[in-house]
Amino acid sequence: MRWLGLAAGFRARYGVLPDPLGGHEVRILVLGADGYLGWPTSLHLSARGHDVAAVDNLVRRQYDVELATSSLVPISDLDRRIAAWQELSGRRVESYVGDLNEFPFVEEVVRGFRPDAIVHFGEQRSAPYSMIDRAHAVYTQVNNVVGNLNLLFAIGELDPSVHLVKLGTMGEYGTPNIDIEEGFLEITHNGRTDTLPFPKQPGSFYHLSKVHDSHNIAFACRAWGLRATDLNQGIVYGQVTDETVLHPDLATRFDYDAVFGTVLNRFIVQAVAGYPLTVYGKGNQTRGMLNIKDTVRCIELALLNPAKVGEYRVFNQFTESFSINQMADMVNDALGGDHEIHHLTDPRVELEDHYYNAAHTKLVDLGLVPHLLDADTIRGLAAMVETHRGRIDLGVMVPTIDWRAAASPHGDASAAPPPPVAVGMIAGA
Amino acid sequence: MRWLGLAAGFRARYGVLPDPLGGHEVRILVLGADGYLGWPTSLHLSARGHDVAAVDNLVRRQYDVELATSSLVPISDLDRRIAAWQELSGRRVESYVGDLNEFPFVEEVVRGFRPDAIVHFGEQRSAPYSMIDRAHAVYTQVNNVVGNLNLLFAIGELDPSVHLVKLGTMGEYGTPNIDIEEGFLEITHNGRTDTLPFPKQPGSFYHLSKVHDSHNIAFACRAWGLRATDLNQGIVYGQVTDETVLHPDLATRFDYDAVFGTVLNRFIVQAVAGYPLTVYGKGNQTRGMLNIKDTVRCIELALLNPAKVGEYRVFNQFTESFSINQMADMVNDALGGDHEIHHLTDPRVELEDHYYNAAHTKLVDLGLVPHLLDADTIRGLAAMVETHRGRIDLGVMVPTIDWRAAASPHGDASAAPPPPVAVGMIAGA
Repeated sequence: MRWLGLAAGFRARYGVLPDPLGGHEVRILVLGADGYLGWPTSLHLSARGHDVAAVDNLVRRQYDVELATSSLVPISDLDRRIAAWQELSGRRVESYVGDLNEFPFVEEVVRGFRPDAIVHFGEQRSAPYSMIDRAHAVYTQVNNVVGNLNLLFAIGELDPSVHLVKLGTMGEYGTPNIDIEEGFLEITHNGRTDTLPFPKQPGSFYHLSKVHDSHNIAFACRAWGLRATDLNQGIVYGQVTDETVLHPDLATRFDYDAVFGTVLNRFIVQAVAGYPLTVYGKGNQTRGMLNIKDTVRCIELALLNPAKVGEYRVFNQFTESFSINQMADMVNDALGGDHEIHHLTDPRVELEDHYYNAAHTKLVDLGLVPHLLDADTIRGLAAMVETHRGRIDLGVMVPTIDWRAAASPHGDASAAPPPPVAVGMIAGA
Repeated sequence: MRWLGLAAGFRARYGVLPDPLGGHEVRILVLGADGYLGWPTSLHLSARGHDVAAVDNLVRRQYDVELATSSLVPISDLDRRIAAWQELSGRRVESYVGDLNEFPFVEEVVRGFRPDAIVHFGEQRSAPYSMIDRAHAVYTQVNNVVGNLNLLFAIGELDPSVHLVKLGTMGEYGTPNIDIEEGFLEITHNGRTDTLPFPKQPGSFYHLSKVHDSHNIAFACRAWGLRATDLNQGIVYGQVTDETVLHPDLATRFDYDAVFGTVLNRFIVQAVAGYPLTVYGKGNQTRGMLNIKDTVRCIELALLNPAKVGEYRVFNQFTESFSINQMADMVNDALGGDHEIHHLTDPRVELEDHYYNAAHTKLVDLGLVPHLLDADTIRGLAAMVETHRGRIDLGVMVPTIDWRAAASPHGDASAAPPPPVAVGMIAGA
C-alpha cells in the first residue's frame, strides 16, 4: 500500500489514486522539476499515482538573482516543497540536484532511478534571456543542446526503452504563411510526395535551441531506436493546478517581468497594479496559448500513450490562439474595462501582421479537455495577484532587451555572465 | 604595386593577377585555413589578388594524433606554408592561430584584419568523428555551433556589412523522396503558399551541427541584417589545385582513413594499395560530389557575388551525383578493372536505396565550369597516391565507429577526449 499519512484535505480531494498503467508501476523522472511548469507537473504525476523523481540544478532561482526579479508568488525551496507534498499526500518524491550538462550526473540519475519515462523541462526557457547578449545566447544554446544530448546518450546507453517527453515550443515554427501541422508535413513537389519535418523559422536564440534539440532527438530515435514525444507548447498562463493550491509550500512561481514573464500573466499583473498593459508593436502577433492546468494534463496524456520504439512524434500543445491585442482586450474587459493599453516599439524580431493557423488535435484525440480562457479565469488570476500586490515591482516589466542589437549596450565583457553550474548531487527527499 | 619577389614559375602561370572587384581591395578572412579545403582556398583567393588572412587553431592536426592517422601527402606546418607562398608569389597571407570558441580571439581577428568577407571552414567536419561517442558528439556540436555563434556576434557587433560565406553540407538535407532545392522550397498547403526553409533530415551529430548553424545564421540575417551565403557542399575529391601543385610546401592534406577520408579518395588509395574497395552496405547511396578545384572556385564565385544586406541564401555546391557503387566501378575501370569490391555492413544510419535529385544551378549561373569526374582525373589522383604509397596504413581504412550504438564500446570515460583548445594568438606571417 503506497498511501501513508494522507492529509485529510488531500484524501477528500482525491480519494483513491488511480494506478494509471493497469498495475504497472510507472517511474517518471521530471527534469527541471523546480521550475514554473516542472514543479506542478511533478505534483500532478505524483498525485496520479506515478513514482516521480525531481531533477533540477536550481538555476531558475539564480536567474532571479541575476535579473533582480522574483516570482510574484513566494515559492518554497525544493526540499521544503517535496517535504510538504509528502506530508500532505504521503507520496514520496525523490530529488536529484545537479546539472544536465554534467554527463556523470545524468548517468547517475538515470541509472539510479531507473525511469520508465523522462519529462524534460530542464532547459533555459526565456527568449529574451537568450537575446541579452552573446554570452547569454551561447549559454542558452550550450545549456539546452548539451543537456539534451547528454540525456539522449544516457537513455541510449542505459535503457533505450525509456520514453522521452521533451518540451519544445510552438515558436519553433515561426509564422509561416501556411497552416502549421504537428511536426511533419506531407509535401508534393515536382510530382513526388514525402512526409518531412515541418520547416522551422525560430525567432530567438532560445527558440533556435529548441529547434536544434528537435533535430537531435529525431536523429537519436532514427539511429538508436529511442522513443520520444516532442511537445511544441504554446504560451502558458495561470499559476494554479489542483495540487499547487493545496498548500502555500506547493505553490509554483508566477513571473511577470519582461524576461521570464509570459504575456497574459504580465497583462494581469499590469492591470492589478494600475499600470498600462504593454503591447509590443501592433499587437496582431498571434500565438497558441494554454492554461497551466492543461500543461500538466498534456504531459500525463503523452506519458500514458507513449511513442513507439524508434518513433519521434510531435504534438502541438496549446488549446486556442489569440492575438496580443485580443489578450489585452480580454484582460481589460474582465477586469473593469478601464485599463490603458500602450503599444511599445516591438523589441522582438517578429511579424506584427501574419497568418496563423496551427493544428492541435493530437492531444485532444488522446483525451485532453481544455480549460479555455474566459473572464472567470482572468479574474481568478487577478485575485491571486491581488493577494501579492505588495510584491509587484513595476520596473521589471519594461522590456530592455533589443532583439535587433547584436552587441550588448554594455559590451560582452561586462554583461552578467551565465549562472554558475551547480555541482554535486543530493539524492533523496 | 603588390607584386614583389615573384618566382618565375608563378609568374609564368599567372601573369598579372586580376583585381577582382574593380579596384576595390577585398580583404578575406579564411577560417579553418590549415585544413583540407581551407588551405587551397586561401591560396586560390590570394592568387586571384585578394588580401587573405588565415585563421586556424591547428586542431585538424590534433585529430591525426588522436586517431593515429596522417595525411597521405606530407603537409608543411602553417607558418612554412605561408612562407612558401610568399616566396613563390610575393603575396603575403597573415595568420591568426586561435580558437573560434574563444570570443575575444574572434573579436580580435575581425577587429584587427577588418575583412570584407569571411569564409568559414573552421569546424569539425567528419561525420564518423562526431559518432565516436558522447564526448565527440558534444564536442562537435559545441565546437561548431559556438564558433559560428561567436562569428555571427563578432560580425554583428563590429561590421554587419561583412559577407559571411559559410560551409554547410548537402548532408543537411538527408535523402527525402522529393527533389532537393537550394535551401528553400515553395510549399502549397491547404490552398496557401509560402517559400520556406527546405526540411532537414541530417544523418549524424556532425551533419546536425551544420543544420543548427544554418538556422542560427538565417536568424542573424533576419534579426541583424547580416549577409550570408551557406554553401551546402557535396563530397569533395582530389588533392590538387593550380596553387597547391606549385611546391610541396603548398600541398594540402589527403585523407583516406575511415574517419576523415572521403569515399572517392579512399577508393583510390585502396585501389593503389591492392586492397579491396570497401563499399558500405548495398552501395546505392547516392551523393553529390565535386572536385577540390571546383571548391576553391565556388568560394570565389560566392565572394565575387555577395549576398545582399539581410539576405541568407543557400547554394548547393556540387557538380554531379554518383552512387557509391558507381564510384567504385569508375575507380576500378580507370585503374585496370581487376580490383575487388567488398560490401561491408553499413556502419552508418542511412537509406541504402533512395531517390536522389538535388538542384545545383546557382553556382553554375554565377560562372562555375565544373571539372567532372573522369578516368583521367582518377588516374591522376592514383599517380599522386602512388608517389606516397609507402605512407599508406591499411589499418586506418577499416570502419570501427557504429552509428547505431549510443554507448561507446570503450565507455565514455575512457574515450579519447576532444582535443584541447589551442590558446593564444600569433598574428602575422
